[in-house]
Parts: sequence; structure tokens; C-alpha cells
Amino acid sequence: MKIDHNPQLPNGFSCTSINCGLKAKENDLSLFLSAKPANAAAVFTKNLFPGAPITVGREIIKRGQLQAVVVNSKVSNVGTGQQGIDNVYRMAKAAATECNIDPADVLVSSTGVIAKQLPIELVENGIKGIADSLQADPMVGARGIMTTDTHPKALSASVGDAKVCIVAKGSGMIEPNMATMLVYIFTDAEISADALDKMLRVSVNQSFNMLSVDSDTSTSDTCAILANGLAGTVDEAEFQETLTHLCVEMTKILAIDGEGATKLLTITIEHAANDKEAVYIAKAVVNSPLIKTMAYGADPNIGRILMAVGKCVHCTVIPEKIGITINGTKVFQDLEKTDYNEDEIRTILGGKSVEITIDLAVGNAKATTYGCDLTEGYIEENAAYYSS
Amino acid sequence: MKIDHNPQLPNGFSCTSINCGLKAKENDLSLFLSAKPANAAAVFTKNLFPGAPITVGREIIKRGQLQAVVVNSKVSNVGTGQQGIDNVYRMAKAAATECNIDPADVLVSSTGVIAKQLPIELVENGIKGIADSLQADPMVGARGIMTTDTHPKALSASVGDAKVCIVAKGSGMIEPNMATMLVYIFTDAEISADALDKMLRVSVNQSFNMLSVDSDTSTSDTCAILANGLAGTVDEAEFQETLTHLCVEMTKILAIDGEGATKLLTITIEHAANDKEAVYIAKAVVNSPLIKTMAYGADPNIGRILMAVGKCVHCTVIPEKIGITINGTKVFQDLEKTDYNEDEIRTILGGKSVEITIDLAVGNAKATTYGCDLTEGYIEENAAYYSS
Repeated sequence: MKIDHNPQLPNGFSCTSINCGLKAKENDLSLFLSAKPANAAAVFTKNLFPGAPITVGREIIKRGQLQAVVVNSKVSNVGTGQQGIDNVYRMAKAAATECNIDPADVLVSSTGVIAKQLPIELVENGIKGIADSLQADPMVGARGIMTTDTHPKALSASVGDAKVCIVAKGSGMIEPNMATMLVYIFTDAEISADALDKMLRVSVNQSFNMLSVDSDTSTSDTCAILANGLAGTVDEAEFQETLTHLCVEMTKILAIDGEGATKLLTITIEHAANDKEAVYIAKAVVNSPLIKTMAYGADPNIGRILMAVGKCVHCTVIPEKIGITINGTKVFQDLEKTDYNEDEIRTILGGKSVEITIDLAVGNAKATTYGCDLTEGYIEENAAYYSS
Repeated sequence: MKIDHNPQLPNGFSCTSINCGLKAKENDLSLFLSAKPANAAAVFTKNLFPGAPITVGREIIKRGQLQAVVVNSKVSNVGTGQQGIDNVYRMAKAAATECNIDPADVLVSSTGVIAKQLPIELVENGIKGIADSLQADPMVGARGIMTTDTHPKALSASVGDAKVCIVAKGSGMIEPNMATMLVYIFTDAEISADALDKMLRVSVNQSFNMLSVDSDTSTSDTCAILANGLAGTVDEAEFQETLTHLCVEMTKILAIDGEGATKLLTITIEHAANDKEAVYIAKAVVNSPLIKTMAYGADPNIGRILMAVGKCVHCTVIPEKIGITINGTKVFQDLEKTDYNEDEIRTILGGKSVEITIDLAVGNAKATTYGCDLTEGYIEENAAYYSS
């Protein structure tokens, strides 16, 4: 399957983004539109303090149909009470009026600072006339939803005669739980809302739900898929495979663009006692500040891997059985370090992609998580995010 | 109760530290000795990859008696197989020979790099003659067990005619589980080993087990108490109260000396549904990288507190009920920010002690955790710890 890094929106989809005044200069408002109502599914953050757009989005998606997605960045509309909810409906209505569609078919997302009211007039004024600039390049829509992302993020692929395009943002406050940052997937394949919902959950569980930049689960995570059917039916198994592949590739793109990150960390747990423990241990390792700084410093302090596995005190971990490899080189077995070449490991850790595989040798479950290193850049970005 | 920050060892205890060649210059080997065998109890890390001294220590403590503690820093003797175990016994035997006591009464600890064999000859040579420099100042013993600590740590207090002295080290890889970094508590009170064990667990659960510098649970955490009985019996309730107070004060000292830390974070959860959820939420908040960097940047981005509470998806969290205060100033209630003075909160966050209290208003449980901010200093220290 070929992934297109110069992505295209599928037939019937268009998008745009503008600056409406929430940010000083950069685009802060995006619109994604389908020429006709599309079957749709979505998953949202499980954070118990969800943003107002999540609360409303959960209602909107029940009908299994969407025609537009409107998103602002800079202010997340979280912790904003009834006024926040009202502002979501005002934003949906403004987009529906502009596009001459049903407000019940508009999904609203907001991302940025928490606990600050959304300047709704700026957004409403920005939406007026925004449809005039709708176009086919998904990167244009991706640009308006960025917060601390360093580049807009979109990928596409083909399934039979249909296309699938995935647009995303996300850089910090990322350990999605049953959903992800902001991810929108567009396809012109003809697929029912129920089938979309099932396939989306399968793909998300293997991709975005296995991503952690900083262990902090956002209040605004949203992943939605829209299928407008213009390309007709496709092989659903092939669609599922393509969808998962696109989601995993986008997960890696988000990980390596984690706030301050310089490299991708891929942690694979093999032969765990069960799926739950495989995921738990993989996340403990990928989230360990000492593993993350080891990768950043390219220092082969592999004892930290033992520590991170061992701190999963409720899991089946038998030190005598454990084998650890880094980018294919065995570094630990039989309770001791192997006599690997330390300079070789240092060189591997100095690269752009560090892959740690931990074979627990106690069962048949496997899990892979994606993350990034922890650097001064993360501190600088987050010690002064609000005022900037 | 008065805590003495110019601490003294109780009657019959003495200590010393030297450089035995593990570190370039600083002291790296400490000995603590009681004039007679003492009743003793200890708790150790629950990390499933425990160091060799932990494996041996669990056996040694079963008899409820210790006369000496010998500790090296720089190399932790973890992930070292059978040779590591042998080296623990060699270290105990060397100390016992030097002090003319029973090797079965010697607790051994090692702290430092993981997965590296301990240069046991250096340690054995260092122990020869070390008893000549035994003295009454606990800070001397505290100096030899430091790793990334910026200063030696000891406190003492009185209970009736008896004294209690607590000596500790710890700065990173700190989220103790049922135990703590290296903590040694000495008293001349007369208390049985069983009573010591019970009291130690009560105090540790309210102090060191509520400390997290970086969410990483060490493979070497040890907390031991030795009571040599020279001062006779004491009121046990008073002893328990003093012990807990000393442990909490030492916990705060360890937190604010967390790697790279500039301030103490104290997170209190009030009116949680039950004790387990109170502890879980308190730890989620104190470990959140976004809360830690908010404190470091002194930026009143209080939405991050909502995020951190909300990500505890299995707990009883009802946003409508939650009230949040920072150092006594209410900042969130009724789903919205209060109209607090932002400059005032900025000033509070800029101080040396940030206290966040979250009232969940759903039950009667309470928990307090201790941590620190996350700064460039943590990154710098841990991206290059091994080679330094």
C-alpha cells in the first residue's frame, strides 16, 4: 500500500483556513466540507473534564452523519461552563449558514489554552466568507488547526477507486485515551456509519491510543471519519488495512513532532502475559522520563529500561526471562548486560529513530507504543505556553 | 514537636564516610554502626527488577535485628546476576570483620548506575580501617550515600528521653512504591522489631510513598529503622507521631532537591470517593509534566489542573462539583475560573512552595503528595548521567 505524503482530499471534499484574530498572524480557523452529507463516526477523549466541543460532539455524532468540520486553534473552549456550550452551537450555526447546510451536520472542535472563554465574535466574523477560499489541498486545512505543531500534518492513500485522507494536529498534552488529539479522516468510499465506527475504533486502538508524548491526556481529543460515498463501495478489509496503516503513520508523525522532540521512540513489548499488561508496560517505558532523557542524551544507560519494566509491579515480569534489544542489537539477557559494543549503542541512540524491544517471554501478547524523547525544548515550550 | 535541622545520632550510634575510589573525589562509602545489636525493620522497593542488595536485604531483615548499615554510591548493583548477589555478601562480611560484629546483622545498600558490576575490591579495601573514623555527626554518613543530591540530608527529634535520627538520599528515579530511596532511621528508644515494622509502614505510607520526583520507581529503594534500646521505653503513640513528622519533613527535603527542581509542589486532594482514588488523582497531578512546567514557568495556566484531574478516567470526578485553590486562593468553581487576580497567582507560582488543593466534593477521603517542578536541569542531568 502506498502512502502519499503529498496528500489529496478525496472527491467531493474541500477545505480552507484563515486567521480570524485568535492568533496574531498564523491561521487559527479551518473548515472542512463535503459536497454532500457523509456517513460519519468519531471517538473522543475520555478525560473527565471534556471540552464543550466534545460534549456537543458526542451528541452530534449519534446520527452517524456529518457534512462539515469547523475547527479553531489557540483557545480550546474547555472549563468554560454553559457559555462554552452555547459558543459551540453558535460556531456550528455560523459554519452551516456560510455553507448552506444543516447545523446538525457540523462537527466543531477547538484546541489551545484551557479554561478561557472563546472569543466567539472573532470566530463568527471569520467564518463569514470563508467558503470562498475552499480548495482541494488538505495541508491548507491542516495549517489552521496547529498549536505547537511545527508543521501541518496530512497523508492520503487509495483503496480501489476511493481515496482516504487523514488530517491531524497534536504535539503536547498527548496520551490519548480511546481517541486522540485532533484527527479528521476523509474518504469518498461508500461505507455505512456503523461500519465506519467499528473500523475507526480498530485502527485508533493500534495507532493513536498507543501514542504518548507526555502522558497527559487532553480534554479535547477527537478523531472523526467522514465517508461521502462518491467513489462507490470498496473492499472493507482492504479499507480497514489502509485506514490502520494511515493512522499508524500519522501517529509516528505526531510522535516525532512532540513538543521539543528530536527523535521517535518505538517501544515493543513481546510475549507478555496478556494484552492489557503488554500495553501497560509499553506505556510505562515510553513515558519514563529517564528513558526519554537517555534517548535524548544518546547515553546507553540501559539499566533504566530494567527500572521502567520493573516498576510495573502488578504485571507478570520475570527478570530471569527478559531479553532486551535496541534497534535489533541484544543488550540484556540472563539477568546481565550482553557484551554489546557500547559505541554502537551510542550511535543508535543518537539517531532519529530508537526502537526498544522487550521480550518478556511469559505469554503471547504484544504491543507497540510510539513516543519521543524529553528535551529542554519541552520545558521551554511548556513553562511559558499560556502567556506566549 | 521540635525537629532539629542540626541533627544528632541517638546514643550508641555512630557513622562515617570515605572515598573508596568509585567516584573521582567525593565520598562514596558510608558506614552506620550501633554499639549493640538493634531491633530493626525495613521496607524495600516493589520494583520487579530489584537490586542485589534488595534481594539480600529482604532475607537479612527477617530476623528483625541489625547492627550496621554499609552503603556505597555511584554503582547500584542492579541487573548484575549471581555475581551481584555474591558481592553483597562480600560487602557485608567486610563490614562485619571491620566492626567485629555478625555479618547477619549488616544491611547493605548500593545506589547509582544500574546494570554495572560493583568494583567489589575497591569497596572491600575502602572498608578496611573505616571504623577508625566513626563519629556522632549523621551528616558525615549522609555525605557518602549521595548521588545527584545537592546536599547531605539528615534530621532528628526527641521522644521522651530517646532521640530519633533520619538519614536519607534521593533526587531522581523517585516514585517510591511501598518504600523509598535510601532512608535510614536510628533511635535509642527501646521498641520491638514487630512494633517498629508496623510503625515504619504507617509513617512511610504518609510520607515517602507520597513523593514523586519523576514517576520512575527505583530498583534500590530502601527504608530501614534501627532501635538499640539504650534510652529505654517511650510512649509509642508519641514515637509514631514523631516518626511520621520526621518522615514527612524528610519527604519535602527530598522533593525540593529533586533533580533540577526549583520548588516544592504539594498536591492535596480533598473529599475523594475513597483513599485509593485520592492517592491516584494526587499522583496524577503531581506527576503531570504540564503541571510541573506550569509551576516552573510560574504561568497561571490553571486549565492544566482540570486536564490532570480529568485524565483519571476510572475515578469519581464530577466537574460541576470541583473546587480548586492555589496556596489558599480559589481559582476554579462551578465549571469556570473564578475572577482571581492573575498577577497574584503568578506571584504565588513564582515562589518556592506551590500548594494546589483540589476539592472533589464526592466523599470523605484525602491524600497529599509531594513533588517538584520540571526544569531544563532535570533534562541536562539525565541526558548525560551515565557518562559523567
